[in-house]
Amino acid sequence: MRTSNLLISTTRETPSDAVVISHQLMLRAGIIRPLAGGLYNWLPLGVRVLRKVEAIIREEMNRSGAQEVLMPVVQPMELWEESGRAQDYGPELLRFKDRHQRDFALGPTHEEIITDLVRKEIRSYKQLPANFFQIQTKFRDEIRPRFGVMRSREFIMKDAYSFHMDRESLQQTYDEMFDAYNRIFTRLGLDFRPVQADTGSIGGDGSHEFHVLAESGEDDIAFSTASDFAANVELAEAVAPKGERAAATEALTEVATPNKHSIEEVCDFLQLKKKKIVKTLLVKGADEKHPVVALVVRGDHELNEIKAEKLDLVAEPFEMASDEEILAAAGCNAGSIGPVGLNIPVIVDRTAAHMSDFVCGANKDGFHVTGANWDRDATATLVADIRNVVKGDPSPCGNGKIEIRRGIEVGHIFQLGNKYSTALNATVQNENSRSQILEMGCYGIGVTRVVAAAIEQNFDDKGIIWPESITPFQVCIVPMQMHKSPRVKEAAEAMYQELTAKGIEVLFDDRSERPGVMFSDMDLIGIPHRIVIGERGLDNGQIEYKYRRDEQAQDVATEGFMDFLMAKLEK
Amino acid sequence: MRTSNLLISTTRETPSDAVVISHQLMLRAGIIRPLAGGLYNWLPLGVRVLRKVEAIIREEMNRSGAQEVLMPVVQPMELWEESGRAQDYGPELLRFKDRHQRDFALGPTHEEIITDLVRKEIRSYKQLPANFFQIQTKFRDEIRPRFGVMRSREFIMKDAYSFHMDRESLQQTYDEMFDAYNRIFTRLGLDFRPVQADTGSIGGDGSHEFHVLAESGEDDIAFSTASDFAANVELAEAVAPKGERAAATEALTEVATPNKHSIEEVCDFLQLKKKKIVKTLLVKGADEKHPVVALVVRGDHELNEIKAEKLDLVAEPFEMASDEEILAAAGCNAGSIGPVGLNIPVIVDRTAAHMSDFVCGANKDGFHVTGANWDRDATATLVADIRNVVKGDPSPCGNGKIEIRRGIEVGHIFQLGNKYSTALNATVQNENSRSQILEMGCYGIGVTRVVAAAIEQNFDDKGIIWPESITPFQVCIVPMQMHKSPRVKEAAEAMYQELTAKGIEVLFDDRSERPGVMFSDMDLIGIPHRIVIGERGLDNGQIEYKYRRDEQAQDVATEGFMDFLMAKLEK
Repeated sequence: MRTSNLLISTTRETPSDAVVISHQLMLRAGIIRPLAGGLYNWLPLGVRVLRKVEAIIREEMNRSGAQEVLMPVVQPMELWEESGRAQDYGPELLRFKDRHQRDFALGPTHEEIITDLVRKEIRSYKQLPANFFQIQTKFRDEIRPRFGVMRSREFIMKDAYSFHMDRESLQQTYDEMFDAYNRIFTRLGLDFRPVQADTGSIGGDGSHEFHVLAESGEDDIAFSTASDFAANVELAEAVAPKGERAAATEALTEVATPNKHSIEEVCDFLQLKKKKIVKTLLVKGADEKHPVVALVVRGDHELNEIKAEKLDLVAEPFEMASDEEILAAAGCNAGSIGPVGLNIPVIVDRTAAHMSDFVCGANKDGFHVTGANWDRDATATLVADIRNVVKGDPSPCGNGKIEIRRGIEVGHIFQLGNKYSTALNATVQNENSRSQILEMGCYGIGVTRVVAAAIEQNFDDKGIIWPESITPFQVCIVPMQMHKSPRVKEAAEAMYQELTAKGIEVLFDDRSERPGVMFSDMDLIGIPHRIVIGERGLDNGQIEYKYRRDEQAQDVATEGFMDFLMAKLEK
Repeated sequence: MRTSNLLISTTRETPSDAVVISHQLMLRAGIIRPLAGGLYNWLPLGVRVLRKVEAIIREEMNRSGAQEVLMPVVQPMELWEESGRAQDYGPELLRFKDRHQRDFALGPTHEEIITDLVRKEIRSYKQLPANFFQIQTKFRDEIRPRFGVMRSREFIMKDAYSFHMDRESLQQTYDEMFDAYNRIFTRLGLDFRPVQADTGSIGGDGSHEFHVLAESGEDDIAFSTASDFAANVELAEAVAPKGERAAATEALTEVATPNKHSIEEVCDFLQLKKKKIVKTLLVKGADEKHPVVALVVRGDHELNEIKAEKLDLVAEPFEMASDEEILAAAGCNAGSIGPVGLNIPVIVDRTAAHMSDFVCGANKDGFHVTGANWDRDATATLVADIRNVVKGDPSPCGNGKIEIRRGIEVGHIFQLGNKYSTALNATVQNENSRSQILEMGCYGIGVTRVVAAAIEQNFDDKGIIWPESITPFQVCIVPMQMHKSPRVKEAAEAMYQELTAKGIEVLFDDRSERPGVMFSDMDLIGIPHRIVIGERGLDNGQIEYKYRRDEQAQDVATEGFMDFLMAKLEK
């Protein structure tokens, strides 16, 4: 394509309201334009990228045996009432009435619609398993849309829903989707990790998020330095320290810590490392017999509420005890609690349980104790994993240590079980002609978000650097002063024709702009391979080539240039 | 693909609420399923067709030089206020508030959005002309959605908008779109006609509708029997009869026609053909001097309000005179008006003006006159084309006669002029650095509607017959009792593998269904080429082939079968 036929809408200035790099570059390179809060127009360059992302996803979904469907953006609220989500889903579900005052919503997701379709269309176990996907516009009325298309209100999603007679079949399709997602993100040219995610009440190995690794990511991902293990920090298991706990060497001693409440203040005052102290938090208990329970973690560790909440003794949803409850249970305020002499259940993190001669609150305002030891001075009702992993922890897979990096969630696969099929009574006849509730899985990819994530991972100070598989054009031709030099024009046109005939996607910059403008535009919009044709090169029988990630351009003999370029493109 | 991996959801019964054949067959063949009034899920078979239609449209739009963009489904009402359409557009525009109480609508069309985008992004005449298209979900809150996806509320449209410095450039892009649309509907395999359409206030040759010809069409299209001429019946010119008007032979005579008001009643009573009488209608005039004017057409012709409204003497919008006005102007009621002695402007249709010795109302209740003649008895203030063409009229192109058929509008191209660019002040700098309002064109294709229209034109009593370019599968393989015969299974699998390897889209019916069920399913879903593999054929070294439109299957020697099939597929 010629730039004269393409809306190249680049700007030098970084828009002030764009804080993440992908948002800035998508605006500057003319990929998107805002229409209203959280609503974006995709310009021609952006649509070219979007369509390539969609094509890769569609191919791999088809390859996996999933069937493409298309469900409406506008959904009747009746089905949301039936599933119970009409109540659960907050104001992100944009609801409205049609001209006949019937209730509808803009679909943020399509579980209800597909389950309704399947309960009507699929009658027999013989038709299962089945996996249906669509690539469709979604809407979530985010209270504060931000980061451009990374968290917009209207966006494109690939969502898929699978239906099964049993958990084994669900697991098989889930595994196939896991593989398909790996193929998709690999083909998209992204550095990504499948990450174990929270499955809520389902438990087990039933949920993975796919994260593109990038500093701007919103999520912390825990990796092993020596294996494929990756999990959301909140979900990664903090394993018990190896070996026996060291024996007690100190006597239990009360020390005054006047007005020192936080771990930092106490450690400063007592000249301690945080690793020598334990943090004791009182939270609501699960039953009336134990309305308050204590959670103990090492001073430098953070309590993980998701893990704690799953314990039988802890109330769900997780809630901190009130000041009154703390005073009643521990006889002091929050800053002075400790496990010694505490007369409520004490749940101790595995690492804290491995400490000896530790410091903790004395359950008396303004005092701590030193030289505390488990069993001798304090009793752990339960030892459990209740903290977040930190860098350097042993990996729960058994190999290597934990490393933490930031990720952008671009995909999520999830074993739904029978949540929706039960609510909507989606049954089929099994082999014994009995009606049976279906098992379901769901599998999403944020299509528009993938484009932003690709940029977060691939840019420099000049602009975007597209992965080859989703670049809007593979090659750009920049002719020097073409409008003054018939030779340059002829050579550039010939190159354009030749490459186009080979099926290569070429952007031919035929504008009458200064070379500097053309170079920075092509760098900004991120075309991987640049060819410069000018008088000097023609005189010397050379063509200038530059790979977008290289610092320097190189002169290549015209003679073998096409072979040279083809080799570059195949890389 | 194997039917065991595809949701084949066919039914024998014709759904009672589906009145047009495409709606019936799309439901019966499992192409679509209703979700709510005017909202449909597209099942896997349907999506395959939809994607092919989209691909053809996208290819030809790209070939024409149009640039693909993507604009949000959800649109801010501010822009609709600015264009003035917030007032003009009725309840078909579904409006709602977001969580911050800001006003939005679901886009039924995108003129405002693209004009806003262009006024911000395009600064100079050097960037023009430009034509932007998208393939996107649209929503119109139809009061009575019907005919399935033919008139649904949510639908997919290809809409394009072009921008120009002047009318010549607009005309050029318009002509290119005209050609692109012809290529698109030809490639879709449809019998269609580009039809001149009403341009409203723009006038000229600035609007064409593309109609798929089908008996169920909602529009009447006038064709020439001898040329490419086609126009909406309401727009086709009714040309003047050839030759001189016959001389008067009868004397003007008043006859009593008691209680005879309609043309039919009067003709019956006087034993006349309708061609011997004229119909005189009083309508509101355009200025105060002539608050009422008369319109005269031949008794068997129909007044065309659109044509009449365009005349200077006639009020716009067109409105019939009230009973009081009629009595005041003609001295009688509506059933007895005639041009003889009428003291208001009389506009006479070209054909009516060619009549002599005609019958008309006497402007006296219960009386008509016979033997009336123009000039001698009545004066035509103006002779003009104010009627609908009828079958047998000479074609206005000069060749052949008018034929009328029904059509389904699937595309529309339109020269918008500066309606939106003026309202939204979309200007660019012209060559003299002056700010200049843009000219616009718009070009739509109803993507989902095309699928229904293709069926309206291609079906029989067994089901759909897909055009080859949009069929979900080109070939189906139906094995006989495969689950009992390893020979048949092996031969069918081999055929499936061989055809698939050749890049042919094959549907392999590997279900354990009776042959009759498989045959009728394959006929119903409309696969053009059917291959049957059974024991008997294998014994005889033959494969059964049937083209969907043929009555009879034929046995083809296994030896040359592949060449035979390839020849059929290339047709």
